[in-house]
Amino acid sequence: MLIVMKPGAGSAEVEAVLEKIRSMGLTPHAIPGAQRVAIGITGNKGGLEPGPFEVLSGVADVLRVSQPFKLVSREVKPEDTVIDVGGVPLGGKAIAVMAGPCSVESRSQILEAAHAVKAAGARFLRGGAFKPRTSPYEFQGLGLEGLKLLAEAREATGLKVVTEVMDADDLPACLEHADVLQVGARNMQNYPLLKKLGAAGKPVLLKRGPSATIKEWLMAAEYLVAHGNYQVALCERGIRTFETATRNTLDLNAVPVLKALTHLPVVVDPSHGIGLRAHVAAMARAGVAAGADALIVEVHPCPEKALSDGQQSLTPPEFAELMKQVRVIAGAVGRTVQ
Amino acid sequence: MLIVMKPGAGSAEVEAVLEKIRSMGLTPHAIPGAQRVAIGITGNKGGLEPGPFEVLSGVADVLRVSQPFKLVSREVKPEDTVIDVGGVPLGGKAIAVMAGPCSVESRSQILEAAHAVKAAGARFLRGGAFKPRTSPYEFQGLGLEGLKLLAEAREATGLKVVTEVMDADDLPACLEHADVLQVGARNMQNYPLLKKLGAAGKPVLLKRGPSATIKEWLMAAEYLVAHGNYQVALCERGIRTFETATRNTLDLNAVPVLKALTHLPVVVDPSHGIGLRAHVAAMARAGVAAGADALIVEVHPCPEKALSDGQQSLTPPEFAELMKQVRVIAGAVGRTVQ
Amino acid sequence: MLIVMKPGAGSAEVEAVLEKIRSMGLTPHAIPGAQRVAIGITGNKGGLEPGPFEVLSGVADVLRVSQPFKLVSREVKPEDTVIDVGGVPLGGKAIAVMAGPCSVESRSQILEAAHAVKAAGARFLRGGAFKPRTSPYEFQGLGLEGLKLLAEAREATGLKVVTEVMDADDLPACLEHADVLQVGARNMQNYPLLKKLGAAGKPVLLKRGPSATIKEWLMAAEYLVAHGNYQVALCERGIRTFETATRNTLDLNAVPVLKALTHLPVVVDPSHGIGLRAHVAAMARAGVAAGADALIVEVHPCPEKALSDGQQSLTPPEFAELMKQVRVIAGAVGRTVQ
Amino acid sequence: MLIVMKPGAGSAEVEAVLEKIRSMGLTPHAIPGAQRVAIGITGNKGGLEPGPFEVLSGVADVLRVSQPFKLVSREVKPEDTVIDVGGVPLGGKAIAVMAGPCSVESRSQILEAAHAVKAAGARFLRGGAFKPRTSPYEFQGLGLEGLKLLAEAREATGLKVVTEVMDADDLPACLEHADVLQVGARNMQNYPLLKKLGAAGKPVLLKRGPSATIKEWLMAAEYLVAHGNYQVALCERGIRTFETATRNTLDLNAVPVLKALTHLPVVVDPSHGIGLRAHVAAMARAGVAAGADALIVEVHPCPEKALSDGQQSLTPPEFAELMKQVRVIAGAVGRTVQ
Repeated sequence: MLIVMKPGAGSAEVEAVLEKIRSMGLTPHAIPGAQRVAIGITGNKGGLEPGPFEVLSGVADVLRVSQPFKLVSREVKPEDTVIDVGGVPLGGKAIAVMAGPCSVESRSQILEAAHAVKAAGARFLRGGAFKPRTSPYEFQGLGLEGLKLLAEAREATGLKVVTEVMDADDLPACLEHADVLQVGARNMQNYPLLKKLGAAGKPVLLKRGPSATIKEWLMAAEYLVAHGNYQVALCERGIRTFETATRNTLDLNAVPVLKALTHLPVVVDPSHGIGLRAHVAAMARAGVAAGADALIVEVHPCPEKALSDGQQSLTPPEFAELMKQVRVIAGAVGRTVQ
Repeated sequence: MLIVMKPGAGSAEVEAVLEKIRSMGLTPHAIPGAQRVAIGITGNKGGLEPGPFEVLSGVADVLRVSQPFKLVSREVKPEDTVIDVGGVPLGGKAIAVMAGPCSVESRSQILEAAHAVKAAGARFLRGGAFKPRTSPYEFQGLGLEGLKLLAEAREATGLKVVTEVMDADDLPACLEHADVLQVGARNMQNYPLLKKLGAAGKPVLLKRGPSATIKEWLMAAEYLVAHGNYQVALCERGIRTFETATRNTLDLNAVPVLKALTHLPVVVDPSHGIGLRAHVAAMARAGVAAGADALIVEVHPCPEKALSDGQQSLTPPEFAELMKQVRVIAGAVGRTVQ
Repeated sequence: MLIVMKPGAGSAEVEAVLEKIRSMGLTPHAIPGAQRVAIGITGNKGGLEPGPFEVLSGVADVLRVSQPFKLVSREVKPEDTVIDVGGVPLGGKAIAVMAGPCSVESRSQILEAAHAVKAAGARFLRGGAFKPRTSPYEFQGLGLEGLKLLAEAREATGLKVVTEVMDADDLPACLEHADVLQVGARNMQNYPLLKKLGAAGKPVLLKRGPSATIKEWLMAAEYLVAHGNYQVALCERGIRTFETATRNTLDLNAVPVLKALTHLPVVVDPSHGIGLRAHVAAMARAGVAAGADALIVEVHPCPEKALSDGQQSLTPPEFAELMKQVRVIAGAVGRTVQ
Repeated sequence: MLIVMKPGAGSAEVEAVLEKIRSMGLTPHAIPGAQRVAIGITGNKGGLEPGPFEVLSGVADVLRVSQPFKLVSREVKPEDTVIDVGGVPLGGKAIAVMAGPCSVESRSQILEAAHAVKAAGARFLRGGAFKPRTSPYEFQGLGLEGLKLLAEAREATGLKVVTEVMDADDLPACLEHADVLQVGARNMQNYPLLKKLGAAGKPVLLKRGPSATIKEWLMAAEYLVAHGNYQVALCERGIRTFETATRNTLDLNAVPVLKALTHLPVVVDPSHGIGLRAHVAAMARAGVAAGADALIVEVHPCPEKALSDGQQSLTPPEFAELMKQVRVIAGAVGRTVQ
């Protein structure tokens, strides 16, 4: 159920609606909108009757929400969400580009990467301090030291920092040092983590699980929003199929489908998506042509020496070339690159 | 094994190489090239020694082919294949667009569709006369009558006709009335049909099977080429995955992978690929951005009355709009639309 | 729509119903049953009214069929179909076992295999004369010579011959020499072939396509039955998934699901299903425990020299051991092995 | 690298080997065996030379381990692991059966379920206190209260308690109240949780992720063992495929493959695997026939009123019938049911 307030409704009217909902044992969610306030209701079993809400002062409309995801749905919020990451937008007309190495490996590596991707036009620096690795015997990331190096790179370049949080124990340090917290594909349905990130309030980049349906992915985003965090971006990074010629199967079909279903920004990760350096630029172009709001690309000063994901990381010159191509495609679909 | 002749090698020299290969109980395949003749060898078990060929007059180089697909490989023929469909190219810098209804339903329907897609810029008319349908109780196509209507539409518009051949029994009629013979996804590994189409020599559009790997698909194309037909285009039309929000999962990753592995033109079918009318244009744009050489799009004068695939068919105005967008993207990747 | 005749209904009454259906432009399908005749109706668009049929003499009941597959459905024929293969049953309480090499390779090989599998208790000999191979350069089978060798092995052993028909051109020879015609996984949706096999009337073993849903598979069987052939067995042989540790993923879930949905016998192919010799017996046991009516197993006198599928073929002693295990499991589920 | 000690090697000899390994900056893992001690080495980059270890006193053999999973591999420990769950074995010749409701819903529900499954022969009670649910608006489990009810049911029946731990925050309570800690499919690659469960030392039931390969699953188990916990059982519960007729695709192929690769016990979950009550017994039988060491089955006193998974839960009489069938199949493969 969604209650749409009249454009000029006052805060007392909004509060009266919230109180009415609470009095019924349900949970209200006031949703920020450009022109009006909308209030989602969750916690009901079975349908609600619109009558008790329609009669309240300031209420313009009462709508049923047909999808199982409610607060992330375009039915509830028709206009695109634009996340404000410390002054840099994620979402909206200008395409955001995030770039950097898979793992933070050393001070010189991350600083070199940061300067290079900034020079080519990225506004966000990606880099992993805590790395989910298939084998317990592989490099697991630099941890807190990695976070501090990312923060130092931010100071040096002005780039916003995107990094993965794997464990709630690391959340305070990640909140301190990063600007966008990534939920990795393997953790997309780690609901305790989602609830804590929902409460933490920092922007979240929610990667799609390798076998998650679009609906399950939106439900995972709904966990974040229902726990209070509207600053959520969805990142398509490839699904698992029978095909072995590529690391994953980047599912660009998800881009227009998501843009129709949800107001949240959609990010495409061509690096993990196809997993082959030679083809990352093609998939980045295709992602923008399909309607993506942002890209996240792995760039390493020296991919052949990378401790992880070297086979899919671009060199700085390759990334600069990719940025040129992306700018042209962005223009062709009526958008810009930040 | 691949034997590359010197640029100025004469036909007697080429024939001597062919004869040498035959004398060893193997099969030579002379491959047309812009600047030189290359000769593939198949039929060997285990590796061949280059020595006996290197000493022959006119031979420039003898190369091992590392892939299981030989004649379709870029190793064997580095330059792109451009198929000449009665004067209209398929492959090469200018992107070809094929459009039309899923099934030929009536004279007025196919003529109306043909005029509409031509007006919007398509050079090929697609339409099914023989329809593979999941249920034996569904419309199976108009058969020979449908072929004749397609031929009539060609006369009326100058469009080249693309149609599916399901059964070798229908091959003579299809050869008579059509310009490009489509092998449907369900028949990608129908090897007797591939052998007959290899011998027939007419251009073939080979759709990817819904669970075919890229390698299996190239091997299916190899059947066509090994049986004598180099005029083969590969059509990505969506693979089968766990995702149910889309009809199939259009695998655009296949586009750059194929362009690196093979010289054959790559066609993208966004209509079957995503299966949702509202999102066909997005996937068509993405396909071109990823590097496709051609598009095949379902267009019906009145999709809601279509006997098949109405939910993914565009109206003529929607197709005209798609063509505009595709032209812009083509320009952005340094290409044109025919 | 299904019309169920009274147990004692006479042939004139049945004929009157058939005629009534034909007079409405629809197609009647008289379905043999142990105790009663049932008549399926196909060809209608939209629902039919039961009234005109209920009033006819000898009609016991008129039922709507809720599934898209009609004639293969248990709704239409509740009792199990038992195919009579020249005196040897396929289906029913006694589990049938089919065994033999992937390909017929030579007279001595197929005779040796036939004697070995017969000695161990198989009643059917499998062997491929026409082989669908991923590569055009691999062994394609002995063709007609292979068929004749199979027929010779039948004469020598009394085993019934199961072999794949890939091409309608080979159908006359296959009808002459074989007892059960196999439709391979790659041809499951080769509808022209299915129609011809429907008309041919010989028992058919319909393998599941590697990415076919159970519903699509039943629809393919419906093609055979709707074209007149009720002697159809369904063979689960593994589906294609992301897992690479096994050749395919034998989907034993399909066994109980099929047994609930259809009256046709269900065969399990553990050899292709898991593709690893060491584990074929485990999957054969599991298949019988899940409710399979028959097994088809690859056995080769000398697997390491096999021209195809050696890695999944059992030796004769391994097959004899498997048969022992299968007999015990069959007993445990209240069945026997023929 | 694996060092196998002689049968009579003393503890001083073992300690000397451990110390030698530590002195090289590597990690030794002493692996309990029935007849001998083996010591795995991890932490090396690249191969190790056997020489320095072969010369140590008491060393029988030094082996390279070819798989990426080391400590869970049969190469390292050939004999089956049998987990001692407070006196009840999990693994070994006698098949263990775990049964109970998806979620603990109330005191009466869990007690009724516990008594019923015990009466039918189960030795373990399953029940979820913390529930991972796709929607944030669905029942999330009773939490700590649920754990206490499980412990009460254990007191009342003597059954061992199996329950899922979703969040490290809940680990102390789970350690206090449960006997086996389940890692759910969505958390299979939640490495921080695996590390903590590795250190906790309580038996773990590690469910397969819905798109995890067998190798990835074994690597997840390796996390547990490498962090000190050898009491790990692997639970196949269905993978995600294109098939929609079943909830998941129970992959019984994994059973013999795992039994060959690892010494850990293999559990089959037919309830989640096929997801359809009518077919759970068939898949349970098939799982045992394929070689499973244990079963975990959803049983609810009143499935139609269950707050979760009612469609796949058995009634107590259905479960009693399943147990009878499982006992017969167990006997047929030379095993017993505890």
